[in-house]
Amino acid sequence: MRRLLVIGIGMGEPEGLTARAADALGRANTFFLLDKSEAAGELVSARQALIARFGRPGHRVVRAPSPPRRPAPLAGARKAYEGAVVDWHGARAALLAGLIARELGEDETGAMLVWGDPMLYDSTLRVLAAARAGADFIVEVFPGVTALQALCAAHAVPLNGIGEEVRLTTGRHVAQATPDAPAFAVLLDDGSGLEALLARGFEGTLWWGANLGTEAEILVAGRLCEVGAAALAARAQVKAARGWVMDVWLARRASPEAISAP
Amino acid sequence: MRRLLVIGIGMGEPEGLTARAADALGRANTFFLLDKSEAAGELVSARQALIARFGRPGHRVVRAPSPPRRPAPLAGARKAYEGAVVDWHGARAALLAGLIARELGEDETGAMLVWGDPMLYDSTLRVLAAARAGADFIVEVFPGVTALQALCAAHAVPLNGIGEEVRLTTGRHVAQATPDAPAFAVLLDDGSGLEALLARGFEGTLWWGANLGTEAEILVAGRLCEVGAAALAARAQVKAARGWVMDVWLARRASPEAISAP
Ligand SMILES: C[S@@+](CC[C@H](N)C(=O)[O-])C[C@H]1O[C@@H](n2cnc3c(N)ncnc32)[C@H](O)[C@@H]1O
Ligand SMILES: C[S@@+](CC[C@H](N)C(=O)[O-])C[C@H]1O[C@@H](n2cnc3c(N)ncnc32)[C@H](O)[C@@H]1O
Repeated sequence: MRRLLVIGIGMGEPEGLTARAADALGRANTFFLLDKSEAAGELVSARQALIARFGRPGHRVVRAPSPPRRPAPLAGARKAYEGAVVDWHGARAALLAGLIARELGEDETGAMLVWGDPMLYDSTLRVLAAARAGADFIVEVFPGVTALQALCAAHAVPLNGIGEEVRLTTGRHVAQATPDAPAFAVLLDDGSGLEALLARGFEGTLWWGANLGTEAEILVAGRLCEVGAAALAARAQVKAARGWVMDVWLARRASPEAISAP
Repeated sequence: MRRLLVIGIGMGEPEGLTARAADALGRANTFFLLDKSEAAGELVSARQALIARFGRPGHRVVRAPSPPRRPAPLAGARKAYEGAVVDWHGARAALLAGLIARELGEDETGAMLVWGDPMLYDSTLRVLAAARAGADFIVEVFPGVTALQALCAAHAVPLNGIGEEVRLTTGRHVAQATPDAPAFAVLLDDGSGLEALLARGFEGTLWWGANLGTEAEILVAGRLCEVGAAALAARAQVKAARGWVMDVWLARRASPEAISAP
């Protein structure tokens, strides 16, 4: 039976991988790298460095350009956004099914490297589930450290208040409405989520981090109304300097309960 | 300066640690093990095995019984629950500040091992922040794979729908009201959260897992109304057989959107 390993690579650093993930990299006959056009060169080379380091002798690397994505619709058009994503996933699934059938011998093992953990805001598992309509293979998943964990570790801060709920969300959602949870963590924000929260006068604490795990890592923390603008400025600056920025943040409401918790 | 490393140990398996966490275990002069009375012996011995494997020669292990916790109040009494937890954290913080001051030489490094990742439903970082009132030390955090990641990996399922929000919550909250998020993940459930959801006729999918990463791991997945009872039965059975059970689950609402997403 063909096997496809989906390997979480955390923030791309070799020391951030679990031993099991490193071992999985050594099991693959073939690595599939689907380049998203928007992916920064540095992220692709982090993957290549991991493959070179942990891959077995004689492994193959199959690179394919990811199918082009339709231009992103406006922030408000959620249905249109989902539709575009679903179409794009369909095209990727067809591409992957073809690659797996063609490039993996029976009983061979392929691998895909996923930033952070495959469970969190990543399409690989969904795309592979769809690809199984066109090719026969088993999927095995290896967790990796998510951007959210890297953020909390860098700030030495817990995600949740004592026994409290946390909402994981995206910049798109936060731009539209402030989450009603006592704490919320935001990925995939192009800056407009944080900007909106700041404009609404949100009362609470911000823990923000960009390019975590790289030498360009930046951290900002404090009352959101006091440090939010500095985080947005740092974001713009990193983006201008490097051509890309990835940031993630956690906000906790100022509430009597939140304050009473040590 | 004294240093305290807070090390996420994932589900307790040596191969599940990141290289950085394993390395951190090797840096510690002294390990602090605060035994919660409710902690199962197996969990304590997993920690001891990791220390024996990755600890440096000559390391010390300081065990202290965790301060007793007041009897847990009833499910509804959230304020009372939080109050009891806060008091308990205060007692632990005082205990830890004393231990660190007494057992760590200047410029020495201590370590605490935390199940999963210290960011997620764990009090260690909060307790250490409070302990810094009574002792001077730097905190360094090392992420580990959370129970939620182990669950999603075992089922090869993503946490979130495409661009959708996820709520991280506890059995206590779910027992009181069904979260309004398209997907929600539940830790710290004694069974009453899942039971309540089942009784309310929740329409959606369940991915459930118990004792993940151990040889007693059990997985259940399917329509919640069809497999929920089987998960609860498996829970009761493992608990009866082993004396303890730890389970975590993910529920996704049946919605036109959720269904349309491949
Ligand atoms: C498509 S999601 C992938 C998340 C990934 N699967 C994970 O587990 O972290 C990309 C988002 O992750 C966050 N992210 C990824 N890498 C990051 C980094 N090095 N620093 C800060 N945020 C990062 C950002 O919010 C970014 O928009
Ligand atoms: C106090 S919380 C700690 C969570 C931990 N910090 C983490 O990152 O996974 C304990 C809860 O984690 C979940 N959990 C921990 N270990 C687990 C395991 N091996 N299998 C299933 N659930 C587990 C259960 O929901 C349990 O009630």
